[in-house]
Amino acid sequence: MEQYFVNNEIIDSNFKINDSETFKHIVKVLRHQIGDVIYLVDPTKNLFTAKIAQIDLDNKELSVEVDKLDIPSTEMPVSAIVACSLSKKDKVEWITQKSTELGASKIIFFASKYSIMHWKNNVVEKKLARLQEIAKNAAQQSKRRIIPEVIYLNKLSDLLKYQVSANLVAYEESAKVGEISLLAQTLQKKPESVLCAFGPEGGFAPDEIEMLNQNGFLSVGLGPRIMRAETAPTYFLSVLSYKYELTVK
Amino acid sequence: MEQYFVNNEIIDSNFKINDSETFKHIVKVLRHQIGDVIYLVDPTKNLFTAKIAQIDLDNKELSVEVDKLDIPSTEMPVSAIVACSLSKKDKVEWITQKSTELGASKIIFFASKYSIMHWKNNVVEKKLARLQEIAKNAAQQSKRRIIPEVIYLNKLSDLLKYQVSANLVAYEESAKVGEISLLAQTLQKKPESVLCAFGPEGGFAPDEIEMLNQNGFLSVGLGPRIMRAETAPTYFLSVLSYKYELTVK
Repeated sequence: MEQYFVNNEIIDSNFKINDSETFKHIVKVLRHQIGDVIYLVDPTKNLFTAKIAQIDLDNKELSVEVDKLDIPSTEMPVSAIVACSLSKKDKVEWITQKSTELGASKIIFFASKYSIMHWKNNVVEKKLARLQEIAKNAAQQSKRRIIPEVIYLNKLSDLLKYQVSANLVAYEESAKVGEISLLAQTLQKKPESVLCAFGPEGGFAPDEIEMLNQNGFLSVGLGPRIMRAETAPTYFLSVLSYKYELTVK
Repeated sequence: MEQYFVNNEIIDSNFKINDSETFKHIVKVLRHQIGDVIYLVDPTKNLFTAKIAQIDLDNKELSVEVDKLDIPSTEMPVSAIVACSLSKKDKVEWITQKSTELGASKIIFFASKYSIMHWKNNVVEKKLARLQEIAKNAAQQSKRRIIPEVIYLNKLSDLLKYQVSANLVAYEESAKVGEISLLAQTLQKKPESVLCAFGPEGGFAPDEIEMLNQNGFLSVGLGPRIMRAETAPTYFLSVLSYKYELTVK
């Protein structure tokens, strides 16, 4: 049964879905009929079943009877933020989709020295809108309670403003010198929020690493194999999920 | 510095690279010259630096001076096998590439009831050759010592022959009933080899799960969010790496 995010808070048992994209998907794409049941998540992150009571084709509006579901949230107990250097369109889209599936609370893209791409100012808004749409769809598909926010930073130094409980930077040189446990040590401390920065294919420049390190970003290795730029954030998020969602008991 | 797999064992300091694809990549694509140094891995899984001494364009052969490197292997200490239900071409290729980067020792694809794809007998060989090539390139790029073998099974029941130290099946219903620690419990026992089976987008059929369970495959949940079919194996391999490569000390 598929899930949709709605923009308005659900306060009583009768609710109207009037977002035209959602209407189109429910009525035109999936051809739902009166009596069919779907899931809705409202801005308070509550989950509801919603039985379709009326389909108003003229106003593109659905009337539904909702019922609040008291099942555990699918959100990670830790706020997990990935910050990735800009890369090709398909990779950026892929990172957004996978990071959403894997539970990221925020997805940041930034330009860095060895990034092969830069976004010009006039395309940022459009590109972010597209990525935000991908995040919404992935969040619905993976049955999340929130849509991660997608953010673009024009320069790496803007990332320094994002100070959370644990700021990390994935650095393959760390692996080469045999550093194998800083990530595990950090996670052991159960931070409330973790941010990890990932460089482009060519890696961070030494002065970029230095700037990050001097501003509280701890360099951590993610194992002995060289991962592509888009693979590393999925590794990081999978590890967070395993650590906090599968091994708590 | 890039790495290549060579087909013959390297036994003394002079070696000849005569594989035409590798020759082409080194000389034509990357335009290496005499004196340049590359990495080679031979069938004994040893790593060497190789300095180009001679380029024979007529015979497509490179003479190199090799030097064995005594640095730790990049292979996972546990043999990690992923077995995935067949899906679209790009997803199958993607799973092969990412599973290789993330350290899988073997990548199995199989047809199951709700698979949206089936390979006809006459295309299997060609498709496997293509996937094996993707695995080789990904293994070289991620600096592995082996190329994972890619295997196709015509039916799910053929997977029962693959009995290793721990056989698992990722099952999202496990997550729904609140199962959150069987994967962690299994990994705690430090099995020498782990195989995990992953269903298609539509999931396994109940009788398929029953058959797997009855033959020693333990159903494990991979967290509360629904992952796409291609995301789950990357989650599993990332977790194995974290558990055995980043938290041993």
